[in-house]
Amino acid sequence: MGLQMDAAALNGFLGREFPQVAADFRVERVAENLAELRLIASERNLRPGGTVSGPSMFALADLAIYCAILARIGPVALAVTTNASIDFMRKPAAGVDLLGECRLLKLGRVLAVGDVMIRSEGVDAPVARASMTYSIPPRG
Amino acid sequence: MGLQMDAAALNGFLGREFPQVAADFRVERVAENLAELRLIASERNLRPGGTVSGPSMFALADLAIYCAILARIGPVALAVTTNASIDFMRKPAAGVDLLGECRLLKLGRVLAVGDVMIRSEGVDAPVARASMTYSIPPRG
Amino acid sequence: MGLQMDAAALNGFLGREFPQVAADFRVERVAENLAELRLIASERNLRPGGTVSGPSMFALADLAIYCAILARIGPVALAVTTNASIDFMRKPAAGVDLLGECRLLKLGRVLAVGDVMIRSEGVDAPVARASMTYSIPPRG
Amino acid sequence: MGLQMDAAALNGFLGREFPQVAADFRVERVAENLAELRLIASERNLRPGGTVSGPSMFALADLAIYCAILARIGPVALAVTTNASIDFMRKPAAGVDLLGECRLLKLGRVLAVGDVMIRSEGVDAPVARASMTYSIPPRG
Repeated sequence: MGLQMDAAALNGFLGREFPQVAADFRVERVAENLAELRLIASERNLRPGGTVSGPSMFALADLAIYCAILARIGPVALAVTTNASIDFMRKPAAGVDLLGECRLLKLGRVLAVGDVMIRSEGVDAPVARASMTYSIPPRG
Repeated sequence: MGLQMDAAALNGFLGREFPQVAADFRVERVAENLAELRLIASERNLRPGGTVSGPSMFALADLAIYCAILARIGPVALAVTTNASIDFMRKPAAGVDLLGECRLLKLGRVLAVGDVMIRSEGVDAPVARASMTYSIPPRG
Repeated sequence: MGLQMDAAALNGFLGREFPQVAADFRVERVAENLAELRLIASERNLRPGGTVSGPSMFALADLAIYCAILARIGPVALAVTTNASIDFMRKPAAGVDLLGECRLLKLGRVLAVGDVMIRSEGVDAPVARASMTYSIPPRG
Repeated sequence: MGLQMDAAALNGFLGREFPQVAADFRVERVAENLAELRLIASERNLRPGGTVSGPSMFALADLAIYCAILARIGPVALAVTTNASIDFMRKPAAGVDLLGECRLLKLGRVLAVGDVMIRSEGVDAPVARASMTYSIPPRG
């Protein structure tokens, strides 16, 4: 059960398939059932006060599980989110990148489930925690 | 238990407080425990294929309950999302605005709860459904 | 797109397949994409103070969407819950039955999604609101 | 930030305050921001086929975060669940106890947030994962 894609392959895939979001995110680390992504703090996703917006955190969680799934099954653009549940717990640190670490808890025939812990870089207490479910297309 | 803000007042407030998102959204309708918002389909929030992205739908749901709360309690910038749970059920229609209708189910002393049904304009079957919880600051 | 099972058929099915829970619940009403169930207040599901417990409300929501699905596709015992998200908003009225009304929002090839509004009988303000996702077995 | 209650104190508290559920559950382990509870497999909470029911898993998750909170703040019967989101991922092993391990992610002034991983005893792949939010009464 090796990995089909590593961090470099995932970053290349995101750049080609999702050019409009790839500039804001970077895959940092991939392992069996784990993917860590960085949300780069920039004008585009900061709110007044310098903190990252809720929709940007949603995007980070969504992309983190997507990468954890692709690392296992290879580049399948058609996987889609069916459910996302996010708890926002603390204000992010101002002007700092966010890191989202996804644990893939299930990769079934039709559904994949994972959770994503989001932290401000260098801060231990989590900013948000997301549970994500993806529907994955039939595999040969 | 009248409304503190109508649709025009809410649109003005969003334009002043959240200029970076206000261009994409418009409050269409407000009533007791109800707010309907439009997400204007534009280059910024469309994915390849012309459909609205998940994070943009999250933003629509988040803003819809925020407006339903503000309509009741007046312009309080400090209310924050604590939990969001979204089911994505159908692909949005391509190139069409999305409408999000929030029913405010509870407006308590510290928590407000609502759900938001999201539809492509002119299509009856819902695209997504969100449950949102807000923490609201103490009121005098 | 008529109904495969009405309220009487569903009550019979629950009594045969789930005898250990059927005594606590009754299907009150079924229509296209809608099922209303009653949770009968009894010693078994009341907490000190006479209010219904959280797990019993979970069971009500779970059974309500199950019945809404079966009404459409017929008696398929194998459908299983994959996700449940519940907001508990108000204390139930003491010693009173709860009513759970499920709207079926999607009945797809592999997933069904619905939400359930739970009220104390005779009280308008909702006690809880649940979003439920079921995985349904392949149909011929 | 020491613990206010250990496993023995929590088991005693549950037995006195919630006698109707205490027979099914046992607090196994408590640490800073962590509580592990056992759901004892018995006739009462098994479905045909010998697997634990969804509502029983909900009860396990709910009680696990409650104990993690009480361990930190002491015996406060008034904390109440405001939101629960559960992903059911795999069928529990038949006739086996379930273990639910809660990580307390936030213990704020009014809200506590945690997640609970549920496994069949002796099986590594998780059966379910829950996110729980509790509203906690003002503390002196």
